[in-house]
Amino acid sequence: MITNLNSTQPNFQEKLSKLLAWESVSNADIAKTVDEILADIKSNGDTALIHYSVKFDGITADTMADLTIDLPALKEAYETLNEKEKKALTIAADRVRNYHQKQVQKTWTYTDDDGTMLGQKITPLDRVGLYVPGGKAAYPSSVLMNAIPAKVAGVEELIMVVPTPNGVIVQLVLAAAYISGVTRVFTVGGAQAIAALAYGTETVPRVDKIVGPGNIYVATAKRVVFGQVGIDMIAGPSEILIICDGKTNPDWIAMDLFSQAEHDEDAQSILLCPDADFIKKVEASIKKLLPTMNRKDIIAAALKDRGALIQTKDIAEAITLSNQIAPEHLELSVENPKSMLDDIKHAGAIFMGRNTCESLGDYCAGPNHVLPTSGTARFSSPLGVYDFQKKSSLIMVSDEGATLLGEVAATLADGEGLQAHAQSARYRIK
Amino acid sequence: MITNLNSTQPNFQEKLSKLLAWESVSNADIAKTVDEILADIKSNGDTALIHYSVKFDGITADTMADLTIDLPALKEAYETLNEKEKKALTIAADRVRNYHQKQVQKTWTYTDDDGTMLGQKITPLDRVGLYVPGGKAAYPSSVLMNAIPAKVAGVEELIMVVPTPNGVIVQLVLAAAYISGVTRVFTVGGAQAIAALAYGTETVPRVDKIVGPGNIYVATAKRVVFGQVGIDMIAGPSEILIICDGKTNPDWIAMDLFSQAEHDEDAQSILLCPDADFIKKVEASIKKLLPTMNRKDIIAAALKDRGALIQTKDIAEAITLSNQIAPEHLELSVENPKSMLDDIKHAGAIFMGRNTCESLGDYCAGPNHVLPTSGTARFSSPLGVYDFQKKSSLIMVSDEGATLLGEVAATLADGEGLQAHAQSARYRIK
Repeated sequence: MITNLNSTQPNFQEKLSKLLAWESVSNADIAKTVDEILADIKSNGDTALIHYSVKFDGITADTMADLTIDLPALKEAYETLNEKEKKALTIAADRVRNYHQKQVQKTWTYTDDDGTMLGQKITPLDRVGLYVPGGKAAYPSSVLMNAIPAKVAGVEELIMVVPTPNGVIVQLVLAAAYISGVTRVFTVGGAQAIAALAYGTETVPRVDKIVGPGNIYVATAKRVVFGQVGIDMIAGPSEILIICDGKTNPDWIAMDLFSQAEHDEDAQSILLCPDADFIKKVEASIKKLLPTMNRKDIIAAALKDRGALIQTKDIAEAITLSNQIAPEHLELSVENPKSMLDDIKHAGAIFMGRNTCESLGDYCAGPNHVLPTSGTARFSSPLGVYDFQKKSSLIMVSDEGATLLGEVAATLADGEGLQAHAQSARYRIK
Repeated sequence: MITNLNSTQPNFQEKLSKLLAWESVSNADIAKTVDEILADIKSNGDTALIHYSVKFDGITADTMADLTIDLPALKEAYETLNEKEKKALTIAADRVRNYHQKQVQKTWTYTDDDGTMLGQKITPLDRVGLYVPGGKAAYPSSVLMNAIPAKVAGVEELIMVVPTPNGVIVQLVLAAAYISGVTRVFTVGGAQAIAALAYGTETVPRVDKIVGPGNIYVATAKRVVFGQVGIDMIAGPSEILIICDGKTNPDWIAMDLFSQAEHDEDAQSILLCPDADFIKKVEASIKKLLPTMNRKDIIAAALKDRGALIQTKDIAEAITLSNQIAPEHLELSVENPKSMLDDIKHAGAIFMGRNTCESLGDYCAGPNHVLPTSGTARFSSPLGVYDFQKKSSLIMVSDEGATLLGEVAATLADGEGLQAHAQSARYRIK
């Protein structure tokens, strides 16, 4: 049902590595298809975009107008929601906005001893593209989490693309686009949507950065256009790691493991706990609760293939393993999570205390739910306002500084054999 | 000698696009070679790394010890410098360190109305790989600019790789590694060095992020391993854009254009100026000064193929064009550069006033000289401490918050059909 491991077993590290191993299944065929689509959109713009949308999404479309949703239609989608949904979406959006406002970076300057002014100017990106998957993975919460940080950063134009397989579109997704400030929506997807955003077409404006998750074609296309435009990250399957002291309700822990596993069969749910009896209780809860879940097949597959209940020597060892895994979501279901915080080095988001289940963070606590997966928390961060702002260095050299810096720069330029650099600096020496 | 353009000519935008066009020349053959090298290093570690280093760099090496430079050897390289070089390198390192210390991000938390604690924890990356090109492009200043921000961020291990074609190594590069806190140096390069850093070998430890410029094989390999490790950016050729009001010494402007052009034949130097007479004077200075330059052939080629003197209607139009170009280096050689700053949206670094030539910033003013090229300043930033720190979201929900957030999350999870998310949230409602 779910793998049991113990950190003291001789081949534990090997088993753990195998459990964590993940490679996205891109291959030469996918790369070739993507390259062809990208080249076609670059050369033929709207015509190619309509062609691929009809071909892949099973829809009819003659012009780009058939693939465009304007602002009034977004508003209309919002108006169709019931009051409870409207309220939930609004509270979530407000909380997400409040949190992200703390991430706004500001321009700074200072003057050094020789009167030279140095600093860093902050500006928002002009235009951002937001990819939203269609079909079963079209989540309104993802629209909020991708769009709101961009708006808080000051991005003026936010272009959303979402494929509509067989014409299906989720009204809650359009409503989320409306309340998070999306400017325009095109109902296109796949590599063709990424190409349209990266290169621009007659109708789709070229953007400066593309964010949002997608399938292997979308991920492959993002990797190729990276450099032409900015991209967020190449996301792997979602994961949760729970460290528990054995004193939380085992049903809660089982359900928290389910909440990750229900995403898809590749999702990963792991519990680290020093208490063997508690692990047995969680196993019993899993057995009891699984049959009650609508998505029980997906959950069972994910738990069987990629889940694990791991007994550790103590909480300290659980933290060491957590740092090694660098999980996307880390739940500290313990009495005093604050005392553990200094020792935790790598994690996308840290959910502290028994109250703080991951799903509260997924929807409405405030922080972003777009997080680094597959151990990339070793070097990357949650999506944030900083992904939609950029920096320019500022340098304004004083007369005194021109002499001081001119001599240093000329010496180093001479050492590198760059004569024009040296001469340019020497001209400024007073 | 250099192209003359005028913003009022009918096909100006077309000519400008052509001038700015740049595509890195990666192709299927390079991609295949790189894929093979990456796979070989992944499977065969040190053995493969030694094999490729011998094959491509024209050196002899039997073991990894032959490809390793330890700390005492770095120190020795520093000791061999003359006093003037030592002093220049030290002043530059100190100034770069001081500037970058202003970029250090700190952990923050706050408590909201319902007692829920939210925040963002900042941690450094554990281990970073620094790629330094060998041969003619081995610049000690690049070592400072890549290594110091990582050290300021708190990165403990900094692994440098530098190929030594035919065994040649620049002592100034090793000296720069020494004073900027590099931990270990391996004399390997190319795609094989990127693979060793990304996957690890028996001797080269796997890093969390790879920074530093390289040739097309290095750039292609970085693009492939992106996701396994973080990377900085895929750099294009270097560029300078100068906006001048026509009152700077024309020799200075000519030399500033040269200082970019001398890097390589693909480098780009552009002047925007509303004053036709001044443009003629700059042209005369170019003609006069070019024969005096050691690298006159490289400069002449770069100016001819990719340089331009562009007459604009006024300074305001020059700023508009600059925002369109999003230059790596922007020199504002004008009387009052501060008054222009609000209107400048996209630039890697802004050099303000007639004193502030680019080369002062390249070496020692303080800000980083690793900057976004080829218009990528639209969406990216100078290399900085923020590239070596990462963020983890913090969420600790209070009892009151568990009820409030639980209801919102459950409603939204119901809307997305995610039952375990909803149940996990409902368990926490008091």
